[in-house]
Amino acid sequence: MAPAVKEELRRAGHVIGYEAYVRMAGPFRSDQVIHASDNRVEMDRARHAFQLAATGEHVVVVSSGDPGIFAMATAIMEALHLSIDPLWHGVDLAVLPGISVAQAAASRVGAPLGHDFSILSLSDNLKPWPVILNRLDHAVQADLVLALYNPISKARLRQLGEALALLRRHRAPETVVVLGRDVGRPAEAMTTTTLGELRPDQVDMRTVVIVGSSETRAFPRAQGGHWVYTPRWYPMPGLNT
Amino acid sequence: MAPAVKEELRRAGHVIGYEAYVRMAGPFRSDQVIHASDNRVEMDRARHAFQLAATGEHVVVVSSGDPGIFAMATAIMEALHLSIDPLWHGVDLAVLPGISVAQAAASRVGAPLGHDFSILSLSDNLKPWPVILNRLDHAVQADLVLALYNPISKARLRQLGEALALLRRHRAPETVVVLGRDVGRPAEAMTTTTLGELRPDQVDMRTVVIVGSSETRAFPRAQGGHWVYTPRWYPMPGLNT
Repeated sequence: MAPAVKEELRRAGHVIGYEAYVRMAGPFRSDQVIHASDNRVEMDRARHAFQLAATGEHVVVVSSGDPGIFAMATAIMEALHLSIDPLWHGVDLAVLPGISVAQAAASRVGAPLGHDFSILSLSDNLKPWPVILNRLDHAVQADLVLALYNPISKARLRQLGEALALLRRHRAPETVVVLGRDVGRPAEAMTTTTLGELRPDQVDMRTVVIVGSSETRAFPRAQGGHWVYTPRWYPMPGLNT
Repeated sequence: MAPAVKEELRRAGHVIGYEAYVRMAGPFRSDQVIHASDNRVEMDRARHAFQLAATGEHVVVVSSGDPGIFAMATAIMEALHLSIDPLWHGVDLAVLPGISVAQAAASRVGAPLGHDFSILSLSDNLKPWPVILNRLDHAVQADLVLALYNPISKARLRQLGEALALLRRHRAPETVVVLGRDVGRPAEAMTTTTLGELRPDQVDMRTVVIVGSSETRAFPRAQGGHWVYTPRWYPMPGLNT
């Protein structure tokens, strides 16, 4: 946690967030009001934060990873944009960046995101599945390293398999794949595998999937496992690899 | 700076890096040896770090932003991969992630990276320009938000104009563009403009350029300027926008 975030949490009168993340942000003092909520109620949380802040309260909305990457900062912006309340717009609002799960996972194995890359969410809860497939298709044709968020969930078992089938049409079976599960938590587990060997049942909703480009390399780590990186340079192959 | 990074700097016997970044990482004690070097000698720096660490020295290689995103961690990996020295491979090596300049810039204006995005470098020092154009082409067709690193330099004046011409063929003139110059430093300056109005002379080598997707929005900030965000949801337009 960045020192600036710790300082805001210390100053907070109210802390709002998904209960698992609020728990990780603590402990809190008895004079601090904790508003822990279920997942998937981002807009409710954002509005609640503005209601409190508009009355002069010091409010922190906690998020995991970087709040600006598939996290609460966007819901906060949506709530503010939709509001015509001048008190909401007068709130002294700051977004404090953090380390996204893709970056944390990448750091554990070396530097797979060291060259051009894309972060895509495979969740079709808020965007149409054809849009996701179209994005994947262009991203692989551009030979970008991919970090896939929300790769699978109990309600979305089919999508990851479809996504992998698309990736396999463009990228070699030897393409390096890194799985980061529970990154930054006690149960953290990193796996290095290949696109050819990856099975959807190795992936769950707490996993970030990094798919290398044609240039991403893995080599054995003396301590066990592998280092993975994408070189800074790129050769001149036929385009549309 | 993350607490883990601060702790490693405290423990370091040797600090290696581009002189401007080493200066920002200080102050250091008199018993710490500082190896500040010019820019563009990443591989020399990486090898120097392993030479020292292989003798048992505690070495920190400093980088700006996230070392894993267009920064020193990749050079470290390349140097290690190219080496057959078992002492180098035996070094107890860790990559400590940080906040990339794209994330820092995004946080200042809201959440432009709140949905699928790509980070691309426009520098053709280490990759062919046609590869860069091909990647830009696919990224805009996929309607990804783009964060462009190394958008221009004194030796590369032509490329940004060509890149903007390509972007303008696919994205509307109203597309939101955010310029972050010297982000995280005293001279930090954020500018919100549009793809239609952006001029290359507004951009220099210390600027990160964030180009919104078709869905990225800007709205006035009560304190002046604009908030910018990309919604979590995405409508079903014609594909290949």
